[in-house]
Amino acid sequence: MLPCPVRWALWAWVYSILPTTSQAAVLGWRGSLPLPAHWRVARNISFQVLYSPMSERLKQQMAFLVEIDKMKGILRRTRVLDGSRYENDAEHSWHFAMMALVLAEYATEPIDLFRVVKMALVHDIVEIDAGDTFAYDDQARQTQYERERKAAERIFALLPPDQAAEFRSLWEEFVAQQTPEARFAMALDRLAGVLANYCNNGGGWREFQVPKEKVIARNSVMARAAPELWEMARQMIEEAFADAPLGIIQPVASQ
Amino acid sequence: MLPCPVRWALWAWVYSILPTTSQAAVLGWRGSLPLPAHWRVARNISFQVLYSPMSERLKQQMAFLVEIDKMKGILRRTRVLDGSRYENDAEHSWHFAMMALVLAEYATEPIDLFRVVKMALVHDIVEIDAGDTFAYDDQARQTQYERERKAAERIFALLPPDQAAEFRSLWEEFVAQQTPEARFAMALDRLAGVLANYCNNGGGWREFQVPKEKVIARNSVMARAAPELWEMARQMIEEAFADAPLGIIQPVASQ
Repeated sequence: MLPCPVRWALWAWVYSILPTTSQAAVLGWRGSLPLPAHWRVARNISFQVLYSPMSERLKQQMAFLVEIDKMKGILRRTRVLDGSRYENDAEHSWHFAMMALVLAEYATEPIDLFRVVKMALVHDIVEIDAGDTFAYDDQARQTQYERERKAAERIFALLPPDQAAEFRSLWEEFVAQQTPEARFAMALDRLAGVLANYCNNGGGWREFQVPKEKVIARNSVMARAAPELWEMARQMIEEAFADAPLGIIQPVASQ
Repeated sequence: MLPCPVRWALWAWVYSILPTTSQAAVLGWRGSLPLPAHWRVARNISFQVLYSPMSERLKQQMAFLVEIDKMKGILRRTRVLDGSRYENDAEHSWHFAMMALVLAEYATEPIDLFRVVKMALVHDIVEIDAGDTFAYDDQARQTQYERERKAAERIFALLPPDQAAEFRSLWEEFVAQQTPEARFAMALDRLAGVLANYCNNGGGWREFQVPKEKVIARNSVMARAAPELWEMARQMIEEAFADAPLGIIQPVASQ
């Protein structure tokens, strides 16, 4: 038997020529690899944590959960409904998911509601890298998909490959707008924006001088997936631009 | 035929003696009522909106969605992971729901994951009225359930009765801790607190001088529903109190 330091040096060399998990994923080596059981640990994480009882899978999952906490710092161009500040992507995603639970019955097509909720939770994670793209900034919107695709590649890849693929496909589905779930989710995302601007006296529409026609055109995609909600949203837009908001939606007095 | 103003006055009188929707709910009059189709509209909302095409049901749903936006202003005693500020209930609920999606496989009992996600989204809504109760404030915790029950009664009742009952029962189930879903959701809620304090060098535990034993005792309820996550959380607590955090969880460098 070789002395301990020499054995360690040999193992370190063996590990150094093995691929990292992300390289292995590119090679299509998923699941059962013909390698020592702990190679993934050794190639991907610091020595500090080599002997913790956490599995590599759990470490990846926690790294992802820590990373997406940054959503709490990505600001949108809409304000919270009381107008006190801009809202961030994390709290928007929560409100969007709540809208899905409450307003599911207005979807015209049959939907898998859990899938809509998952899309709501995941749809803005790419903005951690790509930033919030203002809905009426035509120039920024040209590069939006490319920026967000790169972000999706980096951020979802923090997860174990099976979950990375699942979350990525949720985001792709939302963007592609080819399923009833994606269309209904988009309608709710638009409604969230309309509601925020409506409750703030025109909000971003006025602040950034967006003409009413552009607002109507952008949000009218709601009509297919949720015509009753679009009818309401259209009325909210009319009221907001007519300087007479807070007609159809009434705030509730606290306690 | 009577002249128009007289007919209106008569209708106004007829409506005035009918119960409001919430009174009707108390009487058990749900669903098909032996009353003119639009009595609920006439008895419950302002004249301003009497002729809008929105149904009373949609109005209630929107009033609820506007009300719960206040979650964005309810601060917890934990900070966002980068330490820059206290986190609010809305963004916490989003992160909690994401934890459920990512960590579902660690539940020891079979769970309905959608139900866990719904609990995550709904569990803190009562804090709009009841405020955040600090986990280690024993005095405040004595009155917590009573304060939160009152809040649940007011806030969920903004919804149509069927949805009010559904959301209320989700919250009750979470608090009662008698189902696998409720236990796993609670484990994740605790893990969220541990993670936030861990990433902030002890965070609220140090700030409010909570002894390690109390932290361990409070969070050890995780052990039943998710033993692997509790093992990790226990290690995080040890590290945080030993002044050596950021060992087992590593932040990811951005882009």
